[in-house]
Amino acid sequence: MNEAPLDEAEKNARHNARMKAIQAARAKLMAEKNIEKGLLIVHTGAGKGKTTAALGMACRAIGHGHRVSIIQFIKGAMTTGEKVVFDAFADQVEFRPMGEGFTWDTQDRVRDIAVAREAWEVIKARILDPDDWDMVIADELNIILRYDYLPLAEVLEVVTARPEGKHVVITGRNAPDALIEAADLVTEMAQVKHPFRAGVKAQAGIEF
Amino acid sequence: MNEAPLDEAEKNARHNARMKAIQAARAKLMAEKNIEKGLLIVHTGAGKGKTTAALGMACRAIGHGHRVSIIQFIKGAMTTGEKVVFDAFADQVEFRPMGEGFTWDTQDRVRDIAVAREAWEVIKARILDPDDWDMVIADELNIILRYDYLPLAEVLEVVTARPEGKHVVITGRNAPDALIEAADLVTEMAQVKHPFRAGVKAQAGIEF
Repeated sequence: MNEAPLDEAEKNARHNARMKAIQAARAKLMAEKNIEKGLLIVHTGAGKGKTTAALGMACRAIGHGHRVSIIQFIKGAMTTGEKVVFDAFADQVEFRPMGEGFTWDTQDRVRDIAVAREAWEVIKARILDPDDWDMVIADELNIILRYDYLPLAEVLEVVTARPEGKHVVITGRNAPDALIEAADLVTEMAQVKHPFRAGVKAQAGIEF
Repeated sequence: MNEAPLDEAEKNARHNARMKAIQAARAKLMAEKNIEKGLLIVHTGAGKGKTTAALGMACRAIGHGHRVSIIQFIKGAMTTGEKVVFDAFADQVEFRPMGEGFTWDTQDRVRDIAVAREAWEVIKARILDPDDWDMVIADELNIILRYDYLPLAEVLEVVTARPEGKHVVITGRNAPDALIEAADLVTEMAQVKHPFRAGVKAQAGIEF
């Protein structure tokens, strides 16, 4: 058994050979991936980044000339930094905060339900529209479903009936199992560490 | 014991009372959070959304008038959708893909290390600059650390020495424990479901 440390030349040679093998394996894998379709994407989990990643996807889509509709179910009141960016591409993006704030601020279940229904009718029309809106983002819809403000069955029916090629992104913690089941791409944003724990407040450019 | 189902009026009343209590608890909690500081943020995990969420944070920061530097350590070759968006705010953002592609494509450890060093010197200068760059994003730096292309100790020293108020965002799977330890905010993007599994290929507006 050779226990002498690898010298740099050998390290380099081994690395390069390993990468060649990985490249070949990846090329084979990628060649098998040839389906192009509109995806149902879910960002869930208790960590940060669910909405932020959806906004990043919106940026990406805008850059490719797509049209994106972003409907926010909860954060109606907050003026957000990203709005400035989306306003610069107003012919491609609509950014509609249709919620009235957090449920603990509104404190009115009947009104919350009515507001959720109104937002849902807008996004439903976007999702089912065969001619417009390449990407539709239903921000915090999972929260709405969690509170039973909208019937899950109706939401599932609509997202499943989306036209081919349409991407739908749904965010919010506690995504229902049936939604995860129906989705093509699901990421759970898990909280490993949060600055609130250390007394740091929400800051411009980070939280909003 | 009352087993009769709640009528809607009672459901509403209970909900509204619970929300009032949550609001009070949150107000107390938020009042304790009064530190404002530049955060060290890490997005790690095997799931999607690490880079995308960082780009979403960049959008947010831009909207607040901040200046953002985004240095990509890996995805040098790829033309990305978000570039179009950032180009529209060229006076506030620099977006520099400084990698030469994935390690399995370059297949050259010596060159990879030299390229990583070059990108790191740029981002190090941005992180330590006391007068410019409110947010610095080191995209896929964790991969570079994973391959030992840069000394972890040096990276830790630099991010820890960042000027007050400067946000640093580091992405990539397999974040080193010591980096997580040093960070203020860490999210793990966990893969629940990925469309590659179903034969779906990388698509414009989603993956790039």
